[in-house]
Amino acid sequence: MRRMGPVARGFLTALFVLATGAGMVNAQSNALLNIMPLPAKVERAEGSLKIDATFRIAFAGYRESRLDRAGQRFLHQVRRQTGLVLLPAKTDAGTATLEIKTDHESKVIQELGEDESYTLEVTPTGAKLHAANPLGTLRGLQTFLQLIAITPEGFSVPALHIEDRPRFPWRGLMIDSCRHFIPLDVMKRNLDGMEAVKMNVLHWHLSENEGFRAESRKFPKLHEQGSDGLYYTQEEIRGVIEYARDRGIRVVPEFDMPGHSTAWFVGYPELAGGSGPYAIERQWGVFDPAMDPTDEKTYKFLNEFIGEMAKLFPDQFFHIGGDEVNGKAWDANPKIQAFMKSHHIKNNAELQAYFSGRVQDLVAKHKKTPVGWDEVLVPGVPKTIVIQSWRGVDSLAAAAKDGYRGTLSNGYYLDLGWSAARHYAMDPLGGPAAALTPEQKQLILGGESCIWSEYVNAENIDSRIWPRNAAIAERLWSPEGTNDVASMYARMDTESARLEWLGLTHRSFQRTMLQRIAGTWTPAEFDALRALAQGLEHQKDYSREASASSPPTSLTPLNRLVDAVYPESDVSRGFSLLVDQFVSSGCKDAALGLEIRTQLSEWATIDERLQALAQRSRLVQEATPASAALSLSAKIALDALDTILKGAAIAADQKKMHLDSLSALEQQAHKSQLTIPELPAFQKVVEAASTGGLCAK
Amino acid sequence: MRRMGPVARGFLTALFVLATGAGMVNAQSNALLNIMPLPAKVERAEGSLKIDATFRIAFAGYRESRLDRAGQRFLHQVRRQTGLVLLPAKTDAGTATLEIKTDHESKVIQELGEDESYTLEVTPTGAKLHAANPLGTLRGLQTFLQLIAITPEGFSVPALHIEDRPRFPWRGLMIDSCRHFIPLDVMKRNLDGMEAVKMNVLHWHLSENEGFRAESRKFPKLHEQGSDGLYYTQEEIRGVIEYARDRGIRVVPEFDMPGHSTAWFVGYPELAGGSGPYAIERQWGVFDPAMDPTDEKTYKFLNEFIGEMAKLFPDQFFHIGGDEVNGKAWDANPKIQAFMKSHHIKNNAELQAYFSGRVQDLVAKHKKTPVGWDEVLVPGVPKTIVIQSWRGVDSLAAAAKDGYRGTLSNGYYLDLGWSAARHYAMDPLGGPAAALTPEQKQLILGGESCIWSEYVNAENIDSRIWPRNAAIAERLWSPEGTNDVASMYARMDTESARLEWLGLTHRSFQRTMLQRIAGTWTPAEFDALRALAQGLEHQKDYSREASASSPPTSLTPLNRLVDAVYPESDVSRGFSLLVDQFVSSGCKDAALGLEIRTQLSEWATIDERLQALAQRSRLVQEATPASAALSLSAKIALDALDTILKGAAIAADQKKMHLDSLSALEQQAHKSQLTIPELPAFQKVVEAASTGGLCAK
Repeated sequence: MRRMGPVARGFLTALFVLATGAGMVNAQSNALLNIMPLPAKVERAEGSLKIDATFRIAFAGYRESRLDRAGQRFLHQVRRQTGLVLLPAKTDAGTATLEIKTDHESKVIQELGEDESYTLEVTPTGAKLHAANPLGTLRGLQTFLQLIAITPEGFSVPALHIEDRPRFPWRGLMIDSCRHFIPLDVMKRNLDGMEAVKMNVLHWHLSENEGFRAESRKFPKLHEQGSDGLYYTQEEIRGVIEYARDRGIRVVPEFDMPGHSTAWFVGYPELAGGSGPYAIERQWGVFDPAMDPTDEKTYKFLNEFIGEMAKLFPDQFFHIGGDEVNGKAWDANPKIQAFMKSHHIKNNAELQAYFSGRVQDLVAKHKKTPVGWDEVLVPGVPKTIVIQSWRGVDSLAAAAKDGYRGTLSNGYYLDLGWSAARHYAMDPLGGPAAALTPEQKQLILGGESCIWSEYVNAENIDSRIWPRNAAIAERLWSPEGTNDVASMYARMDTESARLEWLGLTHRSFQRTMLQRIAGTWTPAEFDALRALAQGLEHQKDYSREASASSPPTSLTPLNRLVDAVYPESDVSRGFSLLVDQFVSSGCKDAALGLEIRTQLSEWATIDERLQALAQRSRLVQEATPASAALSLSAKIALDALDTILKGAAIAADQKKMHLDSLSALEQQAHKSQLTIPELPAFQKVVEAASTGGLCAK
Repeated sequence: MRRMGPVARGFLTALFVLATGAGMVNAQSNALLNIMPLPAKVERAEGSLKIDATFRIAFAGYRESRLDRAGQRFLHQVRRQTGLVLLPAKTDAGTATLEIKTDHESKVIQELGEDESYTLEVTPTGAKLHAANPLGTLRGLQTFLQLIAITPEGFSVPALHIEDRPRFPWRGLMIDSCRHFIPLDVMKRNLDGMEAVKMNVLHWHLSENEGFRAESRKFPKLHEQGSDGLYYTQEEIRGVIEYARDRGIRVVPEFDMPGHSTAWFVGYPELAGGSGPYAIERQWGVFDPAMDPTDEKTYKFLNEFIGEMAKLFPDQFFHIGGDEVNGKAWDANPKIQAFMKSHHIKNNAELQAYFSGRVQDLVAKHKKTPVGWDEVLVPGVPKTIVIQSWRGVDSLAAAAKDGYRGTLSNGYYLDLGWSAARHYAMDPLGGPAAALTPEQKQLILGGESCIWSEYVNAENIDSRIWPRNAAIAERLWSPEGTNDVASMYARMDTESARLEWLGLTHRSFQRTMLQRIAGTWTPAEFDALRALAQGLEHQKDYSREASASSPPTSLTPLNRLVDAVYPESDVSRGFSLLVDQFVSSGCKDAALGLEIRTQLSEWATIDERLQALAQRSRLVQEATPASAALSLSAKIALDALDTILKGAAIAADQKKMHLDSLSALEQQAHKSQLTIPELPAFQKVVEAASTGGLCAK
């Protein structure tokens, strides 16, 4: 489920600018509401409800302890967002500021497609939240929290009427806890984040070549020998499931087979279709080892294992992976080749289909519904299976045409470092799926963002998920027409700040990492390093491997600048908008020109300001190719800007030289595994300044 | 133990500058070592020990599970400080990078005065830590962690030889969990901070007028009715004690009596020497209610209560408070007056002494040693008692002369907002104590910093303790002659950053609080607010009450700018040094002049940049008196600076006007309960620019 083709950067930039321009008016009004994902229907009313120390909530209708805990958590979050002192108090519906009414219970084990709708009515004198079941109540409470804002009169919520329900029933985040182990507290705070943006499935990737992360009591050598001691106990897993259920989130475990499974074989080499011994894989990629699909012992083992895990994980769905088997272990094994011959299995794809069918039977035997990556969809596979598509909307639509349910993950790989706008543009019902019949569209259940953890660990994972994941959450919850990128960004920025109250470290992690890199706190030097970090992004897609001087492994420290930058630079985004506006004004807006000049001048001096620090810190030194590239490219843009401001023009040959230099500097930044996201804006300034360009005289 | 006389600001400034100037050379060499508190003896050697993925530790000699946990915690902290991947691995002494040898066990219940010494030997090929018992081992591990630094070759520890032991055996931090409740996780991360700077006593202030915070199973109405539900269960308390013991920290509980005790009376009014009913006190200050010292029921109750708590808290010492009884409840009670007459008790002081004696007997009966604030020291009190002095070194020295043991807290009240340098200048053996005999000096056990929580809650408490507490920790650990303020600040800044890896939020809390205040994330506006916050400090000592428009209570939200500023502004400290250097150069150093000008210009524009935000946010609006005051005072300094740079001078009458304006602006900042710490530096610029001044022509 890993590889995607490269996508031209220019396309994205064009898309983003277009969307930004088109949506401005809408953005303003939506931004004021700061709800993310946007509700199905919002009507504003006059006035607002004051939130002060007298704020109280009361539950009505159906009651359960999960709702009480949600109420406590809600009040705790109100305290965090406002700083108000809200003493614990018994309140009845008559005196509560917010009355929360739930009609009836939801399923004991949360099911796909349960009602998550709610209505929220806020007037200047009080608010009422109403939902059919606790899931809707949970969603509505999050909406209310997002509406609390500081105003000239203090904290308040605007008067309004909301009717809300999700567009898709499956809105997930997949976390890869294998390539780097993700500790329990980090898992939990990300569940808090998911609740905040109304996601409802944690897909937990628990086994890989690089680690087996779940305790098995039947087969203890799985976690004992396959994890370096870094695994979740069954008690901890039950804790996560309970934590998730409290937040209206299902937990779907994934045990990837027959490939991506080296870590299983360390303790149980007899499962493998090759010859051991096996060690935990330290490198990244697709490796040869795979389970032996021809030996009945394999199915006996998997039957017991799946039985154990099916009890541990209550969710109806059970993910069996199934992706990226290269077949080399099978090719090399005469016993397997003999089996294929005797069973008329023509190739490895058919052999995998055979394995997959057997495993699906085991999953069904233990009363679960299987989920698999695209590869499990082969002719004759039962219609119960859910296909998770890493290949794209095309295969997802094709599957739906054949009657298979599916979810989209292509386009939602957070580790690739795409912009929020680019993720936002991906729609599970986009492309060929738009032409499906309504019944076929029903089969497309939603989507899942994915964070694969080659370059992600406990320290920076939050930053690789948030805030961009909020844009994907909106795509999966809000009505189809919700496409205003400027509004999305405005609300995402607000939500990003609010997510910090939940303990997420997606912004705060950077300062501590940069301090480690710098080993200094002298403001002048440290500020230069921070400006560098905030002006760069890590390389996109899978290009980072190519730039590494030696093959990165799970033992490579993630302590470099590339690990500390944000995947999407706010500074760069703001700068690109400035340049767009400036060029749109025919470069006549002097204030904008000055603002651009100030920013360019800062970048232009960064490399020089970092020289002394680079002499003292190896980790700063490693980033100097990127700092030199950023400073030099900013100088090129600065020269072009000054040419415009002087009313002159850049000649054609010089323009070409400048643009070539910019491209070369981008390559240079790759030596630090970094990219210069301002480059299209720099190019735009050069082009505007060139003879015949928009702003040249 | 609350009130102290005002101390002239000028004194401190003079002291600071003096120390800074004097210590520069020493500071440089010490700063490189970055150990805080400084060890008793350090000898540098050639080379350094590389810290990379091969780093391993091994224990030798005496073993126990606490040491194993310390080793795990140590490795975890190495990971956090370096980002290195250190897989769990079995290592023997022969192959370990750091060998940790402990000779024998320490006491099961940690005792006052146990050996905490250690030696640390680092060579380019390995390191050896050696201590008599686990307490010394814990201290040495912290020293090693502080020595890890980034270098041109990666992470390493300099080769050296350290022999270290504490100067005082009692090095405490008192946390007031009553006026605002301090949650468990906050308590724990502060214990982590204490361990990092080698403090060894948590003094836990658990009862007050405003709250009774410990679960009592014998008298459950104490916590049930006296805490708003915000209390620690006995299990949680045992967890804190265990957590502290793991870190070589004793936990001394304080139950303050007979005053500061209104919260006890909510559930048990019969204990009080007045007539109820009583409610949890919401305001701050000294209140009338006090226990009835004349009723045997009181002692029966306290006997049972102290018995229960003496079992819960294993430490030898038990703090009974004893401070600030105003006696009004006793004056007004005829029964008490009759008792005094019949028992020949002449006044309330004698009555309190009678009470105190009875309570001390109870404490002794339960095999504990009592501790009390100054007031418990009255003629005839047994020599076993330990006096905690909030009044000052004079009374501490006087007590020692009389044969009483004592600790110093006067000068270490962190909530007063003093600079680290000012705390650092306080010495338990300073003033009259310097003239004590060696035997008498032995009676002065050390000191305790105190954080009283009127204006402190879970959100900002870390910032009110750290990093300044590290300076107090150094005063209590390091040899008497450790007095180099510049070195202290350099190492404190480093330690401050390192403390963040432990989860302390003393710096990171500010951004989230400012975002709440602003309700915006637009860089331009937000940066202005942050610059304002970082340029100001909260009012010092007890002046904040005086500036409040209505009496603050425990229900007043701590969500304003005054709650979000750092108690000691780094920016201001840096600026003052700049001005000192500039003036010392006869105002000839143009680069310094320009740097000062840039900073002044930023401050001068802050108020204007915040205007729009103040229109939108009530919380920003409340800070506008301070922002206007900062901007106007910076403009005055800017004018003066420009006068210098032009080679002109300010006339005497204008100088007076400027200085008067600056004083008035400081008063204006108080309207926001803030103070302008740059004011002495601004005054210095004005004076330098004035006719006859250092820099005037």
